[in-house]
Amino acid sequence: MQRRCLDDNTCPVARSLDSIGDWWTLLIVRDAMLGIRRFSDFQRSLGLARNVLSARLKKMVAEGVMTMAPAADGTSYQEYQLTEKGEALLPVLVAMRQWGERYLFAPGEPHSELVERGSGKALEKMRVRNVDGQERGVADLELVTAS
Amino acid sequence: MQRRCLDDNTCPVARSLDSIGDWWTLLIVRDAMLGIRRFSDFQRSLGLARNVLSARLKKMVAEGVMTMAPAADGTSYQEYQLTEKGEALLPVLVAMRQWGERYLFAPGEPHSELVERGSGKALEKMRVRNVDGQERGVADLELVTAS
Repeated sequence: MQRRCLDDNTCPVARSLDSIGDWWTLLIVRDAMLGIRRFSDFQRSLGLARNVLSARLKKMVAEGVMTMAPAADGTSYQEYQLTEKGEALLPVLVAMRQWGERYLFAPGEPHSELVERGSGKALEKMRVRNVDGQERGVADLELVTAS
Repeated sequence: MQRRCLDDNTCPVARSLDSIGDWWTLLIVRDAMLGIRRFSDFQRSLGLARNVLSARLKKMVAEGVMTMAPAADGTSYQEYQLTEKGEALLPVLVAMRQWGERYLFAPGEPHSELVERGSGKALEKMRVRNVDGQERGVADLELVTAS
């Protein structure tokens, strides 16, 4: 895939996609949020070639989305963990999940669900609101370009 | 990039990424939300090769994210417009934009801003909440797998 580096771009969407807009990266973040820590467990979950997974994780550590540290149990394994920056991707993943639930599954088709731990409560649908809390759609918004 | 088709996957995140998780697709959606309609305008905005842009738009029409119709002004141009499914990606893009604003720009570094049209009001930060409206983080959630 041809890519143009948009790192200098003043659009935060473009810059985010440059950083984490890789198909596998968000699935790795998803797995890490679900508690996966070890290379072999990511590999098993994603069915991804070693070299591809290794390159992705390396980039994520370089981008500050994950850190790598010796395993807590004292074995020689390395563990990967999300940083605060990585955990802050939660709204992106939940918004993507809700869009998928709504548009990519047939009615009644089974899918995994993300719920509140313990209570099992569902999550509120993510909406775009102005600072007064009023919901706003595409037609209600405009872009102010950087000066 | 090696890809595994996850269309049968019961994870809505994986299925969303399979549908719109291409680096360019979300930038095309962004541009369409800002009012771009014509092939040549997308091309100018994104700096993308004709064949790549053409393939992406074709896939987006096939996925039901965009429709293609003759130009409203009666010329021979075709116009691309977001469907309801495409416009429903707004929370994904806003969440991605806010993450980028927070983590990928230096303090004071200029970036474009998405605001309420007319009033210029800022948008509320997108948060993950349970159905009772309480904010929840990664550690508060769990996945219930499809039965």
